[in-house]
This record gives sequence, structure tokens and C-alpha cells, in this order.
Amino acid sequence: MSVDRIRGVLSPVVTPFKPDLSPDPERFVRHCRWLLSQNVGLAAFGTNSEANSLSAEERMELLERLVEAGLDPGRMMPGTGCCALPDSVRLSAHAVKLGCAGVLMLPPFYYKGVSDEGLFRAFAEVIERVGDRRLRVYLYHIPPVANVPITLPLIERLLKAYPDSVAGMKDSSGDWSNTKAVLDAFAPAGFDVFPGSETFLLAGMRGGGVGCISATANVNPGPIARLAATWKSPDADNQQKRLDEIRTIMQGYVMIPALKAAISHWGGDAGWAAVRPPLVELDAAQASALVAQLQAKGFDMPGLASTR
Amino acid sequence: MSVDRIRGVLSPVVTPFKPDLSPDPERFVRHCRWLLSQNVGLAAFGTNSEANSLSAEERMELLERLVEAGLDPGRMMPGTGCCALPDSVRLSAHAVKLGCAGVLMLPPFYYKGVSDEGLFRAFAEVIERVGDRRLRVYLYHIPPVANVPITLPLIERLLKAYPDSVAGMKDSSGDWSNTKAVLDAFAPAGFDVFPGSETFLLAGMRGGGVGCISATANVNPGPIARLAATWKSPDADNQQKRLDEIRTIMQGYVMIPALKAAISHWGGDAGWAAVRPPLVELDAAQASALVAQLQAKGFDMPGLASTR
Repeated sequence: MSVDRIRGVLSPVVTPFKPDLSPDPERFVRHCRWLLSQNVGLAAFGTNSEANSLSAEERMELLERLVEAGLDPGRMMPGTGCCALPDSVRLSAHAVKLGCAGVLMLPPFYYKGVSDEGLFRAFAEVIERVGDRRLRVYLYHIPPVANVPITLPLIERLLKAYPDSVAGMKDSSGDWSNTKAVLDAFAPAGFDVFPGSETFLLAGMRGGGVGCISATANVNPGPIARLAATWKSPDADNQQKRLDEIRTIMQGYVMIPALKAAISHWGGDAGWAAVRPPLVELDAAQASALVAQLQAKGFDMPGLASTR
Repeated sequence: MSVDRIRGVLSPVVTPFKPDLSPDPERFVRHCRWLLSQNVGLAAFGTNSEANSLSAEERMELLERLVEAGLDPGRMMPGTGCCALPDSVRLSAHAVKLGCAGVLMLPPFYYKGVSDEGLFRAFAEVIERVGDRRLRVYLYHIPPVANVPITLPLIERLLKAYPDSVAGMKDSSGDWSNTKAVLDAFAPAGFDVFPGSETFLLAGMRGGGVGCISATANVNPGPIARLAATWKSPDADNQQKRLDEIRTIMQGYVMIPALKAAISHWGGDAGWAAVRPPLVELDAAQASALVAQLQAKGFDMPGLASTR
């Protein structure tokens, strides 16, 4: 059942905008192609993609542009979970139709303090309405942002009701004890757990995880993918340590504008810096400081500039 | 400038759903007509309308149905603030085109910890892109749900930049000290402040407010509107006390399903109980208990059943 599933390292691909703040498909396709060349898959329309600042129509058009450009939908896990049921259904059905390996699904995140019964119904309605055996749902647990958690009892209930459709989870809680509990409870039965940051990549692989889905895979894809592929090697702990150094620098800034500032610099393309409100781009001093900190660690984005 | 503005009591109109969970325009129009008959205006597509569980298309169609049914758009303040800029622009422009008195605008609410600069840009982009002098924006401060606050410095900056478009605020903080601070700072210059519950109706009117926008105005519209109209009368404090008794009962349940349970009962229309996930309707025991508590206070919804 799980042999052909999408695994390893995925990036919530940052979404480039034109000066008028409309999405920029050309830059988007180029960045996705570069990520794939670094052995990183495409969790497009994640939190760090500013996906919730995009309309459903904008997401669908960008996804179509990737597929039209010849990128492999088997390496794609677009985010499709919205507040409104019809939007989640429409985006998920669209992704399945395009052949995407899976969809990463936020719970409806406006109403807070909702019950597991209500969240079960929310996911169940999407799965039933999409009604396609090819659908693979990855539950997206990101309580620091969504403020609506996906609990272990909810996972258990969804797996029991939809064992073929519910394929795994991204855990962006930043709480290893939660990730470990999910791994221990569900990974042995084939539930694919992706920690939401490479910080937990090695611990996750050792605990039965299948990779990670990480913002910083937008800028440091090769080394993160290398650890996922070689986590049993003797230098795995050293690799993890080097990844953590880069991650720590990035976390010293607001993540999304910092990712875009790094891509602007190493790609030689100032147009990448734009973000949609309510986010604000790094100012010149912040961007310079970020670049200097990364350079001091020997950081590079090999091949990025040549794709511009 | 402010003479013809929408004021008094408004209801975030609950949205009825058919058994397949699609919106039910007929029940919606009937409930809105009843609210208007009780001197309560229509803040359709608010938090208690499950607006964020509706797609943009569903909201626009429901609003068109109200106007087509002959209801006065001058008594409407639909919610139009979404996470994605193009959705907020589209909904706001649509409401203005239909002649709505104003729009109630949530900040983009997915990303947390965003700056006032980013939120200023978010509102400014919507106002600029709608680009219509008839637009009247009411800022929607509801930190317990949106988790993204609208601060006093942000209001000040928006008022300075867009004095004609930024007309007022709904304060659903539940924090009277915040409402009072907003009233003191901005009401004297014509900024219309609506507390987010009738709990603060009398205090708000005495402090320079213009009414309230309250979930429970869906079920108790007449008495709430009466206090707004007669707040200077000697029995105002007694009126407030009676409103508080009903509000307290409603707050003992999850608000949205409780509103729908009350409408189901007093309207003699079981079809009203449906909610969209992630919400869950009251069970039979809860609904019975709610009705009994309300009946014990002499509660009624006069004229509701005859509109069914």
C-alpha cells in the first residue's frame, strides 16, 4: 500500500509575488524545479508559502503551472485545508485530478476550542466529497499558528474510518514529545510522520518517521535531503548539527521574509523579496545581517542563480 | 458625513444549511426579514454566521438573495475580511456594489504575531483596491477567535490615512477597558464603536458608542434594540439586567448551535439546527435544557414562527 508514497524532505515552497502582489508563476516554477533538483519535494501552499494569503483560484492556477511545466506531481503534496468546507473540497479534488501524491490538510482554523467530533466531521466531509480512491491526506498539526490541534484520538478515529485515505501527518508543534507519541502510536501501521522542521529530522527518522517538511528546505534543501537519505551513516549527528546551525540563524528572523531575502540574495533576484500583507519584508539592514550570518557558516544555495 | 451611517443593534445573522450542508437562501432571507422587523440590522457573515465556513461564492450569492428579496442594503454590514487579500477585495467590492451600508472587516487571521505595519498594509490594500468612495469599513477586533488584535495605534493610523473609509469598529474583545479606550480615543471624532455583545450595550451607549453587534440579537432582537433606542430612559439599567439574563443562559452553551437550537424551537423549524463542521449541533438533551432555561425567564421570539 505505502510503497509509492511521497517521502523524504519536502519544502513548503515560498510563493513569489510580482510588484502588484499577484503570484508570479515563472519564479514559482523555477524555484520548484531547483528544489526538485536538490531532492526536495514540493509541499506547495503550506504555512511558509503564504498559502492562506492566496485565493483558491490562485492556488489552483499555480499548481497547474507546475504540472504544465513538466514537474512531477508525484513529488507534490499541496496544502488544501481551508476554513470553508467547499474550498477544501475543491482544492483537494483539483490536486488529486492533477495526480498529486498527496494533500496536506489544515483543520478549519477560524473557530477555536472546537471538539474532536467537529474536526472529525470536517476531515470526513472532505474525504467523502472528494470521493476519489487516489486521495492521500496528510493531516497538518500546527497549533502555534492554526491554534486548532489535531489530537491522537482524532488521528486514531480518522485512520479507522479512512485507512486508505489518511496517509500521514506533518507535525509542526515543535514539541518532540508529541511527535514521538504520534510515531509510537501510528507509524508501525504505516502512518507517515513528517516533523515540521529538520530540527527533528534525525530523531524522527530514528523513531520511525519518513522525512520532514520544513520551511528552511526552501534555502538549504541539499543538506537536509542528504541527512534524510543517509541518516544511518556515522556522520548523521554531525550533519544534524550543521543543519541546526543554519536553522537557528533563520529562526532569528521572521521566517517567510527571511527565506525570501536569502533566495533574493543567492539567486541574484531582488524581485523575490515581496510578501503579501499581513507580512512585511525584511528591511535592508536585516537582510544584510541575515546574509552575513549565513555566509559566516559557509552557507550556499548551489545552482540557484543559474536557474534565474 | 456620519448622518446616514448604519447604527443601533446589528445581528451577525446565523446561516441556515440544508441537509447537504449547502446554504439555505430561503430560510436566510426569512430570518433576515424577521430581524429587520425587530429593528435589528444585518451584520451577515460574521463569526456567528459561520462565515469563515462559507466560500466567497456562497457569501456573495446569499447577499444577492437578500437584496433581490427587497431587503434594504442600507441596513446591511456584511463581513468581508478574509485571510487572502483577493478574497477580501472581491467581497468588499461586491458589498459596495450592492449598496451595503458598510463592511465588517476581520484582519487576515492565519498568521499570528504579525506587526501593525503588516496589518495596516492589509487593510490599506483592500481599501485602495476596492477604490470606491462609498466603502465604509468597520474594523473587527475579536482576539479570542481571530488571535490577531486590532490595536489603538493601528486604528489611529488607518483613520489618518483613510478618514472617509474607516468608519468604525466592532469590539468583540469582551474587555470593557479596551472598548472604553477605543471610545475615548476615537468616538468624539465620529468613529462608530459597536461592542460585540449587548452585555456592554448600555455602558457603550453611555460612553459614546452607537449600538452593538451581538450574536444573541439573532434570538433576542426586540429587547436589545429597545435598549439601544431608549438607553436614556429610567428603566435602562433594568432592561440591561434582563438582557444579561438571556445572554448568560446562551453563553452556557456553544453559541452558534445554541442560537440555531433556539430558532428551531421558537420557529417550529427543525431544519434550522444544522451547522457546518468543525461545529457540532446541540444534542437533544442540550437543546431541551436550553429551551427550558429560556422559557423560565419568559423568553419568546415574537412573530418568528409566522415567518416560517
